Amino acid sequence: MPNEDFQTSLQRAIDTKTKPVGSLGRMEKLAARIATVQNSLQPVMSRCQLSIFAADHGMAVAGVSAFPQDVTRQMVANFLAGGGAANVFARTLDVDVQVVDCGVAGELMANPALVSRRIDAGTANAIAGPAMTAAERDQALANGHAIGGAGDHHAACFGEMGIGNTSSASLVAAKILGLPVEALVGRGTGLDGEGLRKKKALLEDAAERTPDKLSAAAALMEYGGFEIVTMTGAMIGAAETGKIVIVDGFIATAAALCARHIAPDCERSFIYAHRSAEAGHSRVLYALGADPLLDLDMRLGEGTGALLAWPLVKAAAAMLREMASFDSAGVSGPA
Amino acid sequence: MPNEDFQTSLQRAIDTKTKPVGSLGRMEKLAARIATVQNSLQPVMSRCQLSIFAADHGMAVAGVSAFPQDVTRQMVANFLAGGGAANVFARTLDVDVQVVDCGVAGELMANPALVSRRIDAGTANAIAGPAMTAAERDQALANGHAIGGAGDHHAACFGEMGIGNTSSASLVAAKILGLPVEALVGRGTGLDGEGLRKKKALLEDAAERTPDKLSAAAALMEYGGFEIVTMTGAMIGAAETGKIVIVDGFIATAAALCARHIAPDCERSFIYAHRSAEAGHSRVLYALGADPLLDLDMRLGEGTGALLAWPLVKAAAAMLREMASFDSAGVSGPA
Repeated sequence: MPNEDFQTSLQRAIDTKTKPVGSLGRMEKLAARIATVQNSLQPVMSRCQLSIFAADHGMAVAGVSAFPQDVTRQMVANFLAGGGAANVFARTLDVDVQVVDCGVAGELMANPALVSRRIDAGTANAIAGPAMTAAERDQALANGHAIGGAGDHHAACFGEMGIGNTSSASLVAAKILGLPVEALVGRGTGLDGEGLRKKKALLEDAAERTPDKLSAAAALMEYGGFEIVTMTGAMIGAAETGKIVIVDGFIATAAALCARHIAPDCERSFIYAHRSAEAGHSRVLYALGADPLLDLDMRLGEGTGALLAWPLVKAAAAMLREMASFDSAGVSGPA
Repeated sequence: MPNEDFQTSLQRAIDTKTKPVGSLGRMEKLAARIATVQNSLQPVMSRCQLSIFAADHGMAVAGVSAFPQDVTRQMVANFLAGGGAANVFARTLDVDVQVVDCGVAGELMANPALVSRRIDAGTANAIAGPAMTAAERDQALANGHAIGGAGDHHAACFGEMGIGNTSSASLVAAKILGLPVEALVGRGTGLDGEGLRKKKALLEDAAERTPDKLSAAAALMEYGGFEIVTMTGAMIGAAETGKIVIVDGFIATAAALCARHIAPDCERSFIYAHRSAEAGHSRVLYALGADPLLDLDMRLGEGTGALLAWPLVKAAAAMLREMASFDSAGVSGPA
């Protein structure tokens, strides 16, 4: 529970800044959240890191995506070369990027810049049976926990790349929330009507294998991807080390849902960046009681939405730390 | 009219980036707008400047605001000292700031950093008669035009400070749109119910002096503030010199409405930053067919909303200029 005196001081600090009370709207709430996480009325928010977790999905071979599975590996190479949307946004917004191989199909890619935390060369086909073993899940969670806990940045964005991973995220979230998976299935990278019907049918088959409701740990083992499990661990690790976690779109929100179930305290460190155009995202956000900062009709993943929210997070903290008060600036209050 | 071949090339450039078609949503449309204004498939968006226009309003003495008139002058000093919300956001987001005195009540402030483009020490009381003469309006428009046209920055944010200026903006916009002023009156800096009733009554008195519908030029003379007129000129000058104009909240949108009426071509350079919580803003945005990028429940002015949209503008341009294509990165397209 937040300290009540601290909360009173915090609200006073915000309300005595040289602006009408409440006039910075959600930026004031954002500043309050950051201050509470850092337990400081002078919060510091100057460094941010993006970790992109990549992995392949056994389900992809069944035809749940508009893109071939090779694209995961090709996009990892693109990220390492700095050509992805996430790279461009990160460079523009002064965010460091690391790319983590959590289980891309094929052999390990030979690139010293790639962080290897491979569990296996992709998951098993979750339509037919569990995507991974309990031991694999626990290793991916531990890998993520270590990655999230490392570094001295103040905010962490987590992105993902994995052909088939909207399917994985839909199944994981549906099982945790006890919803029919159909309610959370969308077009992913851009399926047409026929593709979407096929994806729904496949995911319904996958969902039928297990009870309607699962724990987060069980849902991750049955339907997770190595990148989603690693991200779940990373969110917990980042929150435990005092970082603000900027939660990206549909897949990252599914990981945040898992993280919250596994470690409820981490939720206070989460800031939901944007409302994705992927169909299931709004439903999961609603279940989390989350109202994201941005709504830009994006559905790319990679952490692109989280990156665009970073300047808001940074500016909100700066507002509290640097803005003058009515007293300090000699400005009159309301008449 | 945009060149059709250019538009085709532009859409192809966006669609062949390494991402599913359309998956960056509004960021893609933003990139297209910037590219069209710069007539380049490699748009550059690295420097942004905020100009804060300050002036006082004769109407303020009648009691249209929750704050005393002195606050305009005090806030100018606060901006010059770097303590305002706009200063803090600008520093955080790497935007240069200039403060322009367009007609603050009292004597000229002695500060070499203040840009003086004073028309007079505040407008006349627009409830009783025209706020300014035609000559004063034209001088303020010319001052703004020169300010907007100067500098080699790629994007311009325009902010304002002036106790009473939501009243001025409500009247100007209502007269141009032919709406009852009541439809555009809000709480400004934070009037209570009684204050709001009084403000409405005063603005209805002011509106009764003139016909229901006025030209932008007439509306600015009758009801404008020197900061609003100067900003109108600045928006036109900035657009004419190829800059992207990031339009802030209610008052800036009223200026944009005037600019569009005076110089229709400038509209293509305008990007609407945010939806203000000030009651009349949504109505004016609707009249302009504008759907702002952000909705953060803010209502401060100063250019704070425009500043928060700047990273999006910058990132959108960078996406088009720097992101790899499927071909260049060797990434497979949809199966």
